[in-house]
Amino acid sequence: MEREFIAWLRQRLGSDSRLLVGPGDDAAVLALGSRPELVVTTDMLMDGVDFVLSEADPRRIGRKALAVNLSDLAAMAAVPHSVVISVALPHACGFALGQELFEGLLPLAMEFNTAIAGGDTNSWDGPLVINITAFGTPTTQGPLLRSGAQPGDAIVVTGAFGGSILGKHFDFVPRVREALLLHERYELHAGMDVSDGLSLDLSRLCEASRCGAELLLDRIPIADAAHTLAASRDVKDSQSALDHALADGEDFELLLTVPAAEAERMCREQPLAGVPITIIGQIIAEPGLFAVDAAGRRTTLTPRGYEHKLQ
Amino acid sequence: MEREFIAWLRQRLGSDSRLLVGPGDDAAVLALGSRPELVVTTDMLMDGVDFVLSEADPRRIGRKALAVNLSDLAAMAAVPHSVVISVALPHACGFALGQELFEGLLPLAMEFNTAIAGGDTNSWDGPLVINITAFGTPTTQGPLLRSGAQPGDAIVVTGAFGGSILGKHFDFVPRVREALLLHERYELHAGMDVSDGLSLDLSRLCEASRCGAELLLDRIPIADAAHTLAASRDVKDSQSALDHALADGEDFELLLTVPAAEAERMCREQPLAGVPITIIGQIIAEPGLFAVDAAGRRTTLTPRGYEHKLQ
Repeated sequence: MEREFIAWLRQRLGSDSRLLVGPGDDAAVLALGSRPELVVTTDMLMDGVDFVLSEADPRRIGRKALAVNLSDLAAMAAVPHSVVISVALPHACGFALGQELFEGLLPLAMEFNTAIAGGDTNSWDGPLVINITAFGTPTTQGPLLRSGAQPGDAIVVTGAFGGSILGKHFDFVPRVREALLLHERYELHAGMDVSDGLSLDLSRLCEASRCGAELLLDRIPIADAAHTLAASRDVKDSQSALDHALADGEDFELLLTVPAAEAERMCREQPLAGVPITIIGQIIAEPGLFAVDAAGRRTTLTPRGYEHKLQ
Repeated sequence: MEREFIAWLRQRLGSDSRLLVGPGDDAAVLALGSRPELVVTTDMLMDGVDFVLSEADPRRIGRKALAVNLSDLAAMAAVPHSVVISVALPHACGFALGQELFEGLLPLAMEFNTAIAGGDTNSWDGPLVINITAFGTPTTQGPLLRSGAQPGDAIVVTGAFGGSILGKHFDFVPRVREALLLHERYELHAGMDVSDGLSLDLSRLCEASRCGAELLLDRIPIADAAHTLAASRDVKDSQSALDHALADGEDFELLLTVPAAEAERMCREQPLAGVPITIIGQIIAEPGLFAVDAAGRRTTLTPRGYEHKLQ
């Protein structure tokens, strides 16, 4: 949910003992009266916003709809269990489009051992909309939250950032296995997935943890696609590859905070096959986001990324 | 989900031991490794299909989006626990519309002790879409399914049918309390909520239970609104009040099958304050739907109701 809306909603709702984690994290955690708790996340994808139906293979759209939900379960270090899937199919496409969406998501569901529990299939005159609600179970380490970061923690990320629009936003592999492995082997204080932009999402993690962060600009792992975008002459207001890495949405990498010594060990061991782990800064007590350049100069960093504009 | 699509999906998916009930009932039942199981249902409502934003108070729309989900939990005789709510808000309305939707659903959430666990708030150039996924827990009697009807069972309904479009489709009270009370006090074999039309939904229950049904036409409780619609000169292809009762969607009443003697006792006792219980027919072994008129003549009844057209 968007920031201001969540703020309003939280104030409007108050607390509920059945919610171990309520609105505001990557997913909710429900207390059901017995262990295990249930991790729940929901994401709605719309034509023209999260994909363009006329330009994309519907199978990639279906796959993405599931992948973004699995990424939210990864953010909580939860084991995927099942999903329910609602679709609003344009009349003209109907049944066939629905089948293609499912054919696109089923291999990913199988890869991540996620059952399709049900859904709601509709057709209408409007554009394609898909909503998936995903269920997972925390491991014995408990769910990984945004709110656990502590001053002195290293900020750690998987993979590289920026330029996702060139293809990764469809084809990324949700970091479920990586999150579970790291959560089991290392002490993680806080975590989330980067869906709206590295700097924006880091600012949200800091807000949830009531702290600030220093980012080491020369340590940010920049994706090849970010360089490609920066070099492109089609882009009107030219941005550097680093700008793209800091502000582009849909990287779907993990953003973690880890005690400094533990983070050093993690980076030394590089336990994830094919997925690099990088320390990109540290958590500080002072609220706000700061950039530290190669020469050690510190400046305020304005969080940038993807935000739905609500009026 | 729509019939053909579910049929395709079931065949495509196979079974999964983590789904005690998969696609095809009013809700899914997830096995989470320990009791209680979780009952899960999801419903997507779209502008122009389930409501008309330009003609309706957004609060009633928000309320309806929650009420249809609670009705599905009632259909399973589950105790509501919580919901997650996704919205796609038209840019022009934005934040204020989101607030009104929530203001409309929060009193109902409170009435039925349902926590708001989270959601996904989006805005776009398209029409308003709301998706709610609701969670409930079965009672010690277990979830009430569509598949338990047996030949000889009486067919029992709550309330009256038809003409919901005149207002009830917004303002109905989901039969959660009624379902829980009946499930506790009486032996219920099968149940569902009537959302797409009495005759169509009954045919689905029969299909799930591999049986048929005889409806006693003169026993169908007809809502005042159905009489109003039938008497209206605005309606082009005029239908009788009974036609409306058999085929109109969104009654959101309970349709139950109950051992005959138990059903007689239930009707005698009328245990639901303000909500009549009526026997409207019986389950038979022979597949198909049949109408029996006041004179005892039996004819084939074509199931009618609301079906999304998928091509």
